[in-house]
Amino acid sequence: MSIIYPITSINGVIGAQLSPQDRGLAYGDGLFETCRIVEGRVPLWPFHYERLVRGCKRLRIPLEQNKLLSYLRGLLEVADIAEGVLKIIVTRGAGGRGYRISSDTEPTYCLSVFPPAAPAEPASAITVTVCQQRLGSNPALAGIKHLNRLEQVLARAEWQDEQIAEGLLLDIEENVIEATAANLFIVRGHQLLTPDLSFAGVAGVARQLIIEQLAEQTGLVAQVVPIALEDIYSADEIFLCNSVMGIRPVTKLLGEPVRTFKLGPRTLALQTAFDAYLLSAQGGLA
Amino acid sequence: MSIIYPITSINGVIGAQLSPQDRGLAYGDGLFETCRIVEGRVPLWPFHYERLVRGCKRLRIPLEQNKLLSYLRGLLEVADIAEGVLKIIVTRGAGGRGYRISSDTEPTYCLSVFPPAAPAEPASAITVTVCQQRLGSNPALAGIKHLNRLEQVLARAEWQDEQIAEGLLLDIEENVIEATAANLFIVRGHQLLTPDLSFAGVAGVARQLIIEQLAEQTGLVAQVVPIALEDIYSADEIFLCNSVMGIRPVTKLLGEPVRTFKLGPRTLALQTAFDAYLLSAQGGLA
Repeated sequence: MSIIYPITSINGVIGAQLSPQDRGLAYGDGLFETCRIVEGRVPLWPFHYERLVRGCKRLRIPLEQNKLLSYLRGLLEVADIAEGVLKIIVTRGAGGRGYRISSDTEPTYCLSVFPPAAPAEPASAITVTVCQQRLGSNPALAGIKHLNRLEQVLARAEWQDEQIAEGLLLDIEENVIEATAANLFIVRGHQLLTPDLSFAGVAGVARQLIIEQLAEQTGLVAQVVPIALEDIYSADEIFLCNSVMGIRPVTKLLGEPVRTFKLGPRTLALQTAFDAYLLSAQGGLA
Repeated sequence: MSIIYPITSINGVIGAQLSPQDRGLAYGDGLFETCRIVEGRVPLWPFHYERLVRGCKRLRIPLEQNKLLSYLRGLLEVADIAEGVLKIIVTRGAGGRGYRISSDTEPTYCLSVFPPAAPAEPASAITVTVCQQRLGSNPALAGIKHLNRLEQVLARAEWQDEQIAEGLLLDIEENVIEATAANLFIVRGHQLLTPDLSFAGVAGVARQLIIEQLAEQTGLVAQVVPIALEDIYSADEIFLCNSVMGIRPVTKLLGEPVRTFKLGPRTLALQTAFDAYLLSAQGGLA
């Protein structure tokens, strides 16, 4: 019997559906992770899990590691997929009406496995636009991957052109923060710069791996700094990254005028290091 | 057979559950309305519906009035309740992974009927605190009642004291915007002032009724203006309102120092007018 994807489990029950009283629906009261499955494993799992724990602390959702891991292993076994995407949603759970958090609400674990997205050539360069939509400032929610994503939905709705892969998002003070579904890095000499996410944005798992390990491996010095559009215009190389697509060089930035960038050696070296990490990482979810 | 509340329908099917792929869960990609049922009718329905339409336009969700009304009438008939609360959630629907809006997604209509909240004396005064949590600035989302409500959840989690009914929310520029689940008005002489919601906040249905009809009926001049905490301290009267609890006078505002306010004649006159409106309104959903 062939499996029809996505295959989903809710609180360990494959094929279950969600209570309409779940606070994930009512208020976006929860978090998510989108993880790449490589050779049947989730190599970046320690990073995903660490961010999920951080988000749950911030939102005061009592994550239970044992439950989550048991549900994850159950689903991955049934899904039986070598390459694909695992999406984890953890909400505060069902119950109550109104914003108040009830102490007797139990988290909902909604896990889905998707087949792989259309594969891209690893070195394939992308064209990026700059979105009109701005990101609101909110230190309590910045960095974590919560379920309140209307800003990203509206930003992504700004273009239909299939040639445009992503859009840059600025905050209300015109700092460049990220792309709609990826983090941004710029290369300047030996410097590898990425935006400060203290007030807006999602601190991506691929971003973290690059900052903490891959930059040094490839002879770069990673720094988290405020970045303006002008800093991007004058960069040697630009790339976007997320845990599913990996590292994607940006060679064209739309605007007046259109700016072009070379697909440079720093980005290519990081790509090679990233792909090697995915295949060799120990400690991933199996 | 007695009915167990809440009673819910999804796309017209009573007791159905939600697809875990619904974008309402994934991204808070949708809107809601919380409507009071009075004598089996929803007297403020025209206001709720108008706001829902406005929100759907803003988010580009293709609301179908006929479907919504048919599902609503079906549920209200089964729910068979004289007094209670109707909650309407409209999401962009199920499907896809990623922020991009697919043209073949159909909206989800998730409707629930709840028994009435614990009744409060109509004139009962409340104590209010000021929240630490700030509201981000976002003109594209301001005013509409979308499902991205983590700011409100975090704000409401700031107090546990049952004596505190609500918390005021300021934006990042220290303008007072609203309470976590209610709008704010202050009375100063014949002036009735309420915060400008162009950059943050939910434009409430009770607020709209007061601005458009009840203020004039009670001899007040309503104005939408920026409001600072200092304006509140010096007000003659303060009240909060929403469509479920109606108008509630604020007589104590926590802080250093604690400020007290009289339960004044303007607020009482508006309460009387509001309650009369609920009983006499034509055009509500029956």
